[in-house]
Amino acid sequence: MATRNASCAIIGAGDYIGAAIARKFAGEGYTVHVGRRNADRLEPLCAEIAAAGGRCVPHQLDARQEDSVKAFLEAANADAPLEVVISNPGANVNVPLLETTDRIFTKVWELACKAGFLSGREAARIMLENGRGGSIFFTGATASLRGGSGYAAFASAKAGLRMMAQAMARELGPKNIHVAHLVIDAGVDTAFVRERIREAHGAEAEANLPEGALTQPASIANAYWALHQQTPDAWTFEMDLRPHGETW
Amino acid sequence: MATRNASCAIIGAGDYIGAAIARKFAGEGYTVHVGRRNADRLEPLCAEIAAAGGRCVPHQLDARQEDSVKAFLEAANADAPLEVVISNPGANVNVPLLETTDRIFTKVWELACKAGFLSGREAARIMLENGRGGSIFFTGATASLRGGSGYAAFASAKAGLRMMAQAMARELGPKNIHVAHLVIDAGVDTAFVRERIREAHGAEAEANLPEGALTQPASIANAYWALHQQTPDAWTFEMDLRPHGETW
Amino acid sequence: MATRNASCAIIGAGDYIGAAIARKFAGEGYTVHVGRRNADRLEPLCAEIAAAGGRCVPHQLDARQEDSVKAFLEAANADAPLEVVISNPGANVNVPLLETTDRIFTKVWELACKAGFLSGREAARIMLENGRGGSIFFTGATASLRGGSGYAAFASAKAGLRMMAQAMARELGPKNIHVAHLVIDAGVDTAFVRERIREAHGAEAEANLPEGALTQPASIANAYWALHQQTPDAWTFEMDLRPHGETW
Amino acid sequence: MATRNASCAIIGAGDYIGAAIARKFAGEGYTVHVGRRNADRLEPLCAEIAAAGGRCVPHQLDARQEDSVKAFLEAANADAPLEVVISNPGANVNVPLLETTDRIFTKVWELACKAGFLSGREAARIMLENGRGGSIFFTGATASLRGGSGYAAFASAKAGLRMMAQAMARELGPKNIHVAHLVIDAGVDTAFVRERIREAHGAEAEANLPEGALTQPASIANAYWALHQQTPDAWTFEMDLRPHGETW
Repeated sequence: MATRNASCAIIGAGDYIGAAIARKFAGEGYTVHVGRRNADRLEPLCAEIAAAGGRCVPHQLDARQEDSVKAFLEAANADAPLEVVISNPGANVNVPLLETTDRIFTKVWELACKAGFLSGREAARIMLENGRGGSIFFTGATASLRGGSGYAAFASAKAGLRMMAQAMARELGPKNIHVAHLVIDAGVDTAFVRERIREAHGAEAEANLPEGALTQPASIANAYWALHQQTPDAWTFEMDLRPHGETW
Repeated sequence: MATRNASCAIIGAGDYIGAAIARKFAGEGYTVHVGRRNADRLEPLCAEIAAAGGRCVPHQLDARQEDSVKAFLEAANADAPLEVVISNPGANVNVPLLETTDRIFTKVWELACKAGFLSGREAARIMLENGRGGSIFFTGATASLRGGSGYAAFASAKAGLRMMAQAMARELGPKNIHVAHLVIDAGVDTAFVRERIREAHGAEAEANLPEGALTQPASIANAYWALHQQTPDAWTFEMDLRPHGETW
Repeated sequence: MATRNASCAIIGAGDYIGAAIARKFAGEGYTVHVGRRNADRLEPLCAEIAAAGGRCVPHQLDARQEDSVKAFLEAANADAPLEVVISNPGANVNVPLLETTDRIFTKVWELACKAGFLSGREAARIMLENGRGGSIFFTGATASLRGGSGYAAFASAKAGLRMMAQAMARELGPKNIHVAHLVIDAGVDTAFVRERIREAHGAEAEANLPEGALTQPASIANAYWALHQQTPDAWTFEMDLRPHGETW
Repeated sequence: MATRNASCAIIGAGDYIGAAIARKFAGEGYTVHVGRRNADRLEPLCAEIAAAGGRCVPHQLDARQEDSVKAFLEAANADAPLEVVISNPGANVNVPLLETTDRIFTKVWELACKAGFLSGREAARIMLENGRGGSIFFTGATASLRGGSGYAAFASAKAGLRMMAQAMARELGPKNIHVAHLVIDAGVDTAFVRERIREAHGAEAEANLPEGALTQPASIANAYWALHQQTPDAWTFEMDLRPHGETW
């Protein structure tokens, strides 16, 4: 694999979407830096990428803390110039309004909105200093566009993230930084989602899901790669993704 | 004026929109409770309403503090059953992305989004206990729907407020509580806006603004009143308002 | 009832929404002109309004024909200066894509989109000549904002109507003509809708619909009246309407 | 170049976007069929593609005529199984409302909306018969989402096309046909657009446009290719495209 002198940093790199993005960009020759609360849990991913000939560096990261985000992105940039930052934290909760405490509302916002802002702003600061442009991408959800019953906290935070990204896109586009927002309007194939399906429809239904019923993390990574391949005369700010059989 | 045994609480009652809403609902016979950071500044409004034969009670209120919001709404409800709550705080700022500190981003969100959530949730709790339904209305802005350059903080917070309101509307509609979001896509006729016009276009331009160039606070109050008059078979969640000559 | 020297013309005045609008504006003192394909079927409505002391003039009208629309609106304007025009034709169909013939697609568009354009443009021409401003309102539907499966024809036409109305609003607002689009995201209480409910849920369910399950035509008329009452410093282009218990 | 036993049909293949799409899909091994009003003008494109080792077949096509569309797509499918259909007709006009005749409004709709419907429906019919799935893509514009002053006809038609595409996507996705709508929110680098720039800003400005100021047709073709490469677990219905420096 041809390596590049460029790094890709992934904020909120869990076992699924974030890991798939790491594999994809590492496979394309990027030095990948991944951050999550518990850095130990990133070891298997980094080992797998190393075994495939790539480079993936794990970091302990609290994406809600300015200093932690800053240190993470600066470490990535010190390793190789920062070219791609993908913010991908999860915080999906459904809680009835009267049970949505101040603490829940604030915490969901910190994870699903403020962390994206801190990542995006620090990424922009570094990329503008580097003067080489770059890509800053955010993962959205159905709730980014629709406030369903029970989603006062989550939909509020995701809509806030989306509009923050839109403001960033307008400000940074002319400065050669590509900001995009990917709306994943789908169940993603994760242990968590499969558990929910088992609960709702039984183990047999879960085991026999038709092909294409759930979005694969690797397909989301491919979508981010396609966005990063766009030339500056034709940048996308927003695209949706869903399985072909999804009712929407 | 016929009085009603019902109260209307206005969160973030400034000198313009909030004051106009207070006048309107007091004029329609509601006991009005108004809250803002500095309760002293509410005295002239309450005096004016009293002179006109209405009732308006001023409160010191920090809308970002759960306890303060709770105490404010419970006081209103103790005075007369809470029927209308209108959340109307201001926090419009335009700041370049790299100058948008963690503190600014968080504070704008607390004022423009979280305060609305706390007001809405506490209003819902009281109204559901009263079992008489009610109206919970939120004031939105252009930025609720569009993230312009420099508006990463403000647009994020306003979009978050809007989606929170949408989730509330879906959850509370079947429980007889009317949640609505008014998008004010306009300059409102306030000292602040007139000062901005003077800065940008000169004193003469400001003095000679054509009729209908700025939205009058009283017209916004009328829109809220029209929403509150709707019957439950035909509730509006969202409407926009702008001066007829506005370019949009 | 105080009469005004002003007329209100209703295009596509059926037995429900159009009739309710006619009653409302006649009750407010407007000379009302109503048009539909079969003018005979307008007689009971006009008789009812006359009995209540109002004035309602029936017209044979094919809203898809430029000359017919023109003649209708000019007759209304000759009677009393045209102040309000409400376009309210129905064409709701659900047809699988492959069964949507060229003829169906075109006819639905002529009824649900082009008729609105012709009415709006001719209304604007007359109002601009009169120099007194006026209101031009369009009735939208859920399909104006969402293309559901089977709605290729209907949603396309309604979205086309909506965007035409938006362009009109931007062009005519500064010329003192208020253009608005009312999104009725609801079942309206009509014989047709009740028949569909009987088919799907049985006669008992239909007979025992909870209060507020269907939107009353009179409530839609009230919404149009509220829009027409707005002052030019605070005009609404778009508002939605739905029953409080609606799942959306 | 590896050839495939599959065809790609392009409706409304002009000198720019349609031609670029033809080059791209021919270069990827597809048998390309291109249709426009004057088939002679397609000869240079087809010759160029042939010289590069590809296959491009020109057709006389009136996209507003059901029979013409049907014959075109069936000819493509007879040549090689139809896998991709891209509908890309142009009809951008800005006309004041009162000058928008019935004929203009209807013609713009026929070109910008109905032609897309006929192409999409006939493409779906053939693809469903073939049982191999396929891609049906539509080219949208800023006006698909916004009705600006003077765009009553064009924005209405483009919004109608978009909602038709959305209904198609919902109906055909489960049947393995990928329907997408590409919103080109940009000036595209064509002779027409450059002429408009010369008129508005002078020849020098046009000659010295900064790189990335206009979207290149080839970049739009790349976006369509990226959409066609998506796996069915992660299909995009809608994405926007604009130059990085665009003010939006």
